[in-house]
Amino acid sequence: MTLLVVGSVALDSVQTPFGSAEHVVGGSATFFASSACHFAPVQLVGVVGRDYPMQKLEALAACGVDLAGLERVAGESFRWRGRYGHDLNSAETLETRLGVFADFRPKIPAAFRHAPYVFLANIDPQLQLAVLDQVSSPRFVGCDTMNFWIASRRNELLDVLRHVDLVTLNDGEARQLSEQVNLVHAARWILDRGPRYVVIKKGEHGAFLFSRPDRASEGNSSPDARVRIFFAPAYPLEQVFDPTGAGDAFAGGFMGHVARTDDLSDQNLRRAVVVGSAMGSFAVEAFSNERLLAVTADEIAARIREFYELVTFENGR
Amino acid sequence: MTLLVVGSVALDSVQTPFGSAEHVVGGSATFFASSACHFAPVQLVGVVGRDYPMQKLEALAACGVDLAGLERVAGESFRWRGRYGHDLNSAETLETRLGVFADFRPKIPAAFRHAPYVFLANIDPQLQLAVLDQVSSPRFVGCDTMNFWIASRRNELLDVLRHVDLVTLNDGEARQLSEQVNLVHAARWILDRGPRYVVIKKGEHGAFLFSRPDRASEGNSSPDARVRIFFAPAYPLEQVFDPTGAGDAFAGGFMGHVARTDDLSDQNLRRAVVVGSAMGSFAVEAFSNERLLAVTADEIAARIREFYELVTFENGR
Repeated sequence: MTLLVVGSVALDSVQTPFGSAEHVVGGSATFFASSACHFAPVQLVGVVGRDYPMQKLEALAACGVDLAGLERVAGESFRWRGRYGHDLNSAETLETRLGVFADFRPKIPAAFRHAPYVFLANIDPQLQLAVLDQVSSPRFVGCDTMNFWIASRRNELLDVLRHVDLVTLNDGEARQLSEQVNLVHAARWILDRGPRYVVIKKGEHGAFLFSRPDRASEGNSSPDARVRIFFAPAYPLEQVFDPTGAGDAFAGGFMGHVARTDDLSDQNLRRAVVVGSAMGSFAVEAFSNERLLAVTADEIAARIREFYELVTFENGR
Repeated sequence: MTLLVVGSVALDSVQTPFGSAEHVVGGSATFFASSACHFAPVQLVGVVGRDYPMQKLEALAACGVDLAGLERVAGESFRWRGRYGHDLNSAETLETRLGVFADFRPKIPAAFRHAPYVFLANIDPQLQLAVLDQVSSPRFVGCDTMNFWIASRRNELLDVLRHVDLVTLNDGEARQLSEQVNLVHAARWILDRGPRYVVIKKGEHGAFLFSRPDRASEGNSSPDARVRIFFAPAYPLEQVFDPTGAGDAFAGGFMGHVARTDDLSDQNLRRAVVVGSAMGSFAVEAFSNERLLAVTADEIAARIREFYELVTFENGR
């Protein structure tokens, strides 16, 4: 099943304690697609400037990402420069130059409008809504967001939530959006605003999937119906090289798995969280999308097995 | 199988965003015993002053904790006063009065010296060594420690590590002890100093069990032999009332489960981590050891099932 992603395509310059990279492939849609392409055909919509080194995207195309929706317009590409300290948990942004991304108005090519799976990566909620106006009844829509939009486009973001099945956000963003300290409360608050699923990402501390039970199928009309919770740890890597893009790689693995299997059962969405966590763990092993694109199906399967061994215990005595 | 614990018995005064408690039962050995007594007969060794309200320990005795090793001496009991902010992750210590605990020299009653399972709760490593001198070849010894001893009694603590099977410590303490930022590196460093098992507790972010493979049984003599890792999340509680004692309750559940089953297999130690996590989750639901002592076998079993449902996914497609 085809998976459409709309988001940023950027040039990143990153410093970590282990080295630095200049003007490498970055952006939410790029990381997402580099991850999702291992599971499903991906259609990417975004914008770059004339300065973008298009040959750097050839590897993406070779992995099955359709770039027909990537506009190339006059101006400078979106550039981000950031730095990580030794704890590697949060980037310090040194410079953001939006360039042509500031005027991005997503245009979904006619051939992309019937994608059954859609992911609205981290862009202005107004643009996320504009994308939803252009697609025809997708089966499952996910979206991401960030602190900046929660603060500056709250009403538009709440409108987006009413129209998506899944939202992914990190723990700080979930607390900011819901104004709830407790993550279970935060998740329930968000689920009450529309989406049936909320993924709360905690970086090196793993990710929660909260699901609103289907009231009809469970014969439960109580608004307090218990929220279902699944948790997957982050893979305990011995070396995190560059955390940039881990969240987008997670979302790409999650959505890619769901698109591939076309199965929205609770069990399959649990597995989607693990696939996402596996892809996030590969993303941080190298700069840019290098490791994500190079990873093999066998390596992905082996890491998912390692996740299984990491958390499995016998429900016995 | 009997389980001996040596540690502090204190009077805590705690402020949380949800209320406060004055002069309630506290201390590492107390929380440990309040948790472990649900699984195995517990023998407690500690010291209190003449001011200790001994009737407050009757509930412990009623739960099968043998207090014959609890000395009562002239002087004031160990008192701790602390405060938690809204994130509930770390206590701010407002006052510590060691009282009679400052001169504590553990004396293990003759009837306790053959306990097959021993836990050295958080006390001066010199005292932990003195306990080990008094017990006769226990089957399995665990110990806890804290930042203060890592800084002030490093050599003695390293000596303890050479004589225990398991050490439990939190992520900050593991990093401090090993001088390694990465937790896998930290665990390997500690495993190389003696214990076969290291539990690294991450509070609300769960707990890792790292195990050194048995080289003989696995035919692997390489010092780089892969460390086995198990992870259990913390239970996603909707209300954390008072985090005091959660780590000791975890250790009590872990050691209690191991003593009850007398089974050191990898699968059983994984389950011990889950039992410990379940007991830690009960500990934080009320002040002092109230909830820990009141919890029923059915409630414990139900929470362990919830842990199972929280992390289980099909290792399928």
